[in-house]
Amino acid sequence: MYSFRNDYSEGAHPAVMQALQETNLVQTPGYGTDHYCEEARALIREKCAALTADVHFLVGGTQVNLVACAAFLRPFEAVVSPCTGHPLVHETGALEATGHMVLSVPSEDGKLTPEQIRTVCAAHSGEHMVRPRMVYISDSTEVGTAYTKEELSALHQVCKALDLYLYLDGARLGCGMTCAAAPLTWSDLAETLDAFTIGGTKNGVLFGEALVITNDALKADFRSHMKQRGAMLAKGRLLGIQFRAILENDLYLETARHANTLAQKLQAGIEALGYPLFIQTPTNQIFPIFSNRLLTALSKTYEYEAQQAMDEDHTCIRLVTSWATPEEAVDTFLQDLKALKEQAL
Amino acid sequence: MYSFRNDYSEGAHPAVMQALQETNLVQTPGYGTDHYCEEARALIREKCAALTADVHFLVGGTQVNLVACAAFLRPFEAVVSPCTGHPLVHETGALEATGHMVLSVPSEDGKLTPEQIRTVCAAHSGEHMVRPRMVYISDSTEVGTAYTKEELSALHQVCKALDLYLYLDGARLGCGMTCAAAPLTWSDLAETLDAFTIGGTKNGVLFGEALVITNDALKADFRSHMKQRGAMLAKGRLLGIQFRAILENDLYLETARHANTLAQKLQAGIEALGYPLFIQTPTNQIFPIFSNRLLTALSKTYEYEAQQAMDEDHTCIRLVTSWATPEEAVDTFLQDLKALKEQAL
Amino acid sequence: MYSFRNDYSEGAHPAVMQALQETNLVQTPGYGTDHYCEEARALIREKCAALTADVHFLVGGTQVNLVACAAFLRPFEAVVSPCTGHPLVHETGALEATGHMVLSVPSEDGKLTPEQIRTVCAAHSGEHMVRPRMVYISDSTEVGTAYTKEELSALHQVCKALDLYLYLDGARLGCGMTCAAAPLTWSDLAETLDAFTIGGTKNGVLFGEALVITNDALKADFRSHMKQRGAMLAKGRLLGIQFRAILENDLYLETARHANTLAQKLQAGIEALGYPLFIQTPTNQIFPIFSNRLLTALSKTYEYEAQQAMDEDHTCIRLVTSWATPEEAVDTFLQDLKALKEQAL
Amino acid sequence: MYSFRNDYSEGAHPAVMQALQETNLVQTPGYGTDHYCEEARALIREKCAALTADVHFLVGGTQVNLVACAAFLRPFEAVVSPCTGHPLVHETGALEATGHMVLSVPSEDGKLTPEQIRTVCAAHSGEHMVRPRMVYISDSTEVGTAYTKEELSALHQVCKALDLYLYLDGARLGCGMTCAAAPLTWSDLAETLDAFTIGGTKNGVLFGEALVITNDALKADFRSHMKQRGAMLAKGRLLGIQFRAILENDLYLETARHANTLAQKLQAGIEALGYPLFIQTPTNQIFPIFSNRLLTALSKTYEYEAQQAMDEDHTCIRLVTSWATPEEAVDTFLQDLKALKEQAL
Repeated sequence: MYSFRNDYSEGAHPAVMQALQETNLVQTPGYGTDHYCEEARALIREKCAALTADVHFLVGGTQVNLVACAAFLRPFEAVVSPCTGHPLVHETGALEATGHMVLSVPSEDGKLTPEQIRTVCAAHSGEHMVRPRMVYISDSTEVGTAYTKEELSALHQVCKALDLYLYLDGARLGCGMTCAAAPLTWSDLAETLDAFTIGGTKNGVLFGEALVITNDALKADFRSHMKQRGAMLAKGRLLGIQFRAILENDLYLETARHANTLAQKLQAGIEALGYPLFIQTPTNQIFPIFSNRLLTALSKTYEYEAQQAMDEDHTCIRLVTSWATPEEAVDTFLQDLKALKEQAL
Repeated sequence: MYSFRNDYSEGAHPAVMQALQETNLVQTPGYGTDHYCEEARALIREKCAALTADVHFLVGGTQVNLVACAAFLRPFEAVVSPCTGHPLVHETGALEATGHMVLSVPSEDGKLTPEQIRTVCAAHSGEHMVRPRMVYISDSTEVGTAYTKEELSALHQVCKALDLYLYLDGARLGCGMTCAAAPLTWSDLAETLDAFTIGGTKNGVLFGEALVITNDALKADFRSHMKQRGAMLAKGRLLGIQFRAILENDLYLETARHANTLAQKLQAGIEALGYPLFIQTPTNQIFPIFSNRLLTALSKTYEYEAQQAMDEDHTCIRLVTSWATPEEAVDTFLQDLKALKEQAL
Repeated sequence: MYSFRNDYSEGAHPAVMQALQETNLVQTPGYGTDHYCEEARALIREKCAALTADVHFLVGGTQVNLVACAAFLRPFEAVVSPCTGHPLVHETGALEATGHMVLSVPSEDGKLTPEQIRTVCAAHSGEHMVRPRMVYISDSTEVGTAYTKEELSALHQVCKALDLYLYLDGARLGCGMTCAAAPLTWSDLAETLDAFTIGGTKNGVLFGEALVITNDALKADFRSHMKQRGAMLAKGRLLGIQFRAILENDLYLETARHANTLAQKLQAGIEALGYPLFIQTPTNQIFPIFSNRLLTALSKTYEYEAQQAMDEDHTCIRLVTSWATPEEAVDTFLQDLKALKEQAL
Repeated sequence: MYSFRNDYSEGAHPAVMQALQETNLVQTPGYGTDHYCEEARALIREKCAALTADVHFLVGGTQVNLVACAAFLRPFEAVVSPCTGHPLVHETGALEATGHMVLSVPSEDGKLTPEQIRTVCAAHSGEHMVRPRMVYISDSTEVGTAYTKEELSALHQVCKALDLYLYLDGARLGCGMTCAAAPLTWSDLAETLDAFTIGGTKNGVLFGEALVITNDALKADFRSHMKQRGAMLAKGRLLGIQFRAILENDLYLETARHANTLAQKLQAGIEALGYPLFIQTPTNQIFPIFSNRLLTALSKTYEYEAQQAMDEDHTCIRLVTSWATPEEAVDTFLQDLKALKEQAL
């Protein structure tokens, strides 16, 4: 049995495990005030060419989204998100639990356009309505797509014009940055976003998301907000050690490239066998459509996420690769699929 | 200048004012524990044939919605509402501010169907998603439509089947109950709803909404929730006195019928003059579409709400009548409109 | 039976009722945007010599406290209050329900001192603790005492020095302002406080508290916060009409003086009969201590609040007078008390 | 330089690191649904002889406290805590941020008594006050003391009688359980508490707290609450692997005993040298009082927490030992202290 269910099925990249092991008995102060965290912060600032950015390390993605929302917004201010956005779908109302409305914008490909942002803002005015203030986007998105540099710049401009914060959830940032169709550099991010996260959990560390705040207006007292929401890790060093290890020598981009390469191989192979895709993606999540009979057979040896029923007989599934996926797993899957096809499944 | 802008442009029905005047110097205990409130509660229970219902009096509509949401739901439970629902549009995120997500369901006519409720529930399962738990509907709706008894029963059944609470916002309940196309009795409400409000503000009292809770599971400690949200009036008597006055001799239904009758006369007159409607409604809110040139002329003597632009040259407006609208205002409006039409506006 | 239980046992001062009656059928826009509200705001600004102050009208005391807390503070910021403060004792956790901690400071007389504020601030530092940001005081206090102008100035200075907002809950402001021992002028309030309320409910109107915001930093978007908490009255005019009526010709101070005078007469009479006081107060709440046997007799003809048991045989009660208390009620009470004393109760 | 500042200065016990290393590349499902977590849960249930208890693994102490508060209480219900309780002092208002008041009870030794609980409940009744519903205690406490089995039973009884949940924060549970003066068994905990945490962070794991819920009424939907507060770890396995490792062969109690033994040696040695203690404790936190001159010298080679100034010249400090403290560190500290004493510091 091999699992393509998600990109957090294993522990951490060996380099990260080794860093944790080597530093294990060094005494440090708590709560992210240690030198490992400081070094990891410095690495990020340097990569981003954003020397005055604030960098915080948090444990998980829902957590960082909710703390950012609580910290950045006043109570009547709202978040604008594509309908596929993680906070709208898979965070059990975490942003609403901090008191904020999230405005849902229809989106087929998981992305927002400047026009959509203008429309939602135009529809919300006056004291009887929430005020849109923060735009939530993700890269790569929840459906595997990615923003080009031009798209990101266009969102940046509309947000500036409308006095909105542009926040990017980078749970799968590495895969977004390194995908062939829509590559981004660290400084592209720092230049266009008010805040963004660098997702570690899905790209090689045990756990952890770095939050980079480039907009000075959002920096004050963030650590107090973290503590209040239970998001300040006692042994904060663990995050610093891991991020230092994964960011050194661009390991973070290398692990992401690996995941993308294998997913693209998988996607191309599935297409070559004649199966349709729900959406063509350039990153590490792919969405083939198979017959339910085929899936019954496949599920004996592979785990995957059922994304949605297409009709009575067909289902779109999600296959995800990661830093830990061996190329053989992809090859074997394609061979197995070919064999099943030949059995007319 | 006459205002058709809304149904809360004046004070209270003379019978209500008289009741307040007559009781003004009687000493009573505070917070709704007085005998006026008790009498008003008894009147409501009797009308509804719901002798074990709990009845609470609150000041305003957004307030009662938010206290009900805070009281009825656990933190991860969500409200299902048509996209036109007041909490989604005109309450500045009041329900979200109590920590709850409101799930928006597309709706052209301001109403929900059982099928829509089934769909939204089917799409939400597991611990990563909010759990739909309360269905928010209004009658008459925010766009002037109304549920028939059959429609309400169907919603009741689907809610029971899916373990959902059915909550009706009755800000304009009188107009919903008395409209010719979809009449409802008090006991229809009590039999199909877990909780509903009887809106006073828009139907003859100075202010006040009565909340009727028929589901025993929702009754406990409601007054504590009211107090915590600032919704317990010190001189609670004012609500009891007013509701007693407006409910006696079915004055509440009479004032609503008056509003409906005049709005229907207005709607029919406008149609007869050849103007289109955005939606045909049976209650006290109507939505004609006029040219902007006509509106420029009309707005010299009439106030109304601009609902939405239809195209560059035409706008849908909302005209609202109330217990206080004199029939002459309607007649004059129609005469004026006819005159403007003859001027080719 | 006569009730000295509280100062909100009756309706409104006749002048207020008359104003409501006279304006009842005038059409106005909603939500406090009408000219009555504007006139009442202008009156308050003028009295306070604070022409740039923002003035909002809300329905109740707990409501205004919670909206102010939600609007003025960021999530990790806390309120400092004497342990007797209304939000700590009688608001069912309304401020905490907006997400904020209220820090309790021991106080015998219901007042805070600069030293106490310095102490609580010194004890709270760093990101693991809430940050004290708003000081809650009341005048007159929950135990009937009142701040002198000098005391208020001293609090103002310590708050400025420590970057704290000074907020005064004026639920019984009139009685505080007009008490002989600690008189205050409108401009004393505006000069020393960042925000304060002018309580109407307990001083002659049916309901309503005016919130005066003098600190520019606290003004932005307050109406959005009101709406979000269900605190924006549809017929906002009712508040404007009432405040205009009660503030004209200083009726507000006159009604308060009346209440103070009668309470002081009552307090002096009780003392003269040899009964001890829990605390000597200069305002409209007094706290005599009687034997339980005496109270059994008294309670046949008078209502009052039992404040606290002093020992097995004695109880401190609270007697409250108001704008509506007739002098004869006080005289009769003292005669009855004298008679009971002669019966050795 | 050696740090006695806290018990989370290092990484994890070698057995825990080894377990993480060995399982690193095993694929598992996410969010704590893996078999490692299941095995760790089974271990805990077995030790506690509480086979129907629910066990959840969370990342940190403030996090588990706030999720429990949000999950267990309705909005108007409050927590009762000694004034020294972590949520009142060092969680930046995390419980209040979920909307709940925490009632502070004065305590010299960090513990609550049944009488104190009865008093606070007696003082809170009716719908204008919060309702005490959950009692927060910790063992060992924030000041190093510990509850005996008898004390815990007495609290259990008063809580049952008053319909309160008894919740124990076990951030330092191992040190509480194994201290000579007040030992507790796993089943003592399960029998007397409605819910309690088993703190891992301070006793040998990288991070993690296990929450044991024995009261059926508190079990429903806890995972939804976790997710909503950002407390569900994607790689939940990390918690299962670590708790399995630290609980096997009672390693958890062994590491705690080690910490206690060294702290007690340190405390006895300091006393033997004639220095006073702020409070005598039986666990791994000790509170000696030294002159500021002595501390200036000590701080050149030791880190510690300054607890509080005793007078102008003396300060109480906190010294903490852990599973990682080598006995030589204690011996050297005592030698250094002796040498400083001989220099008359």
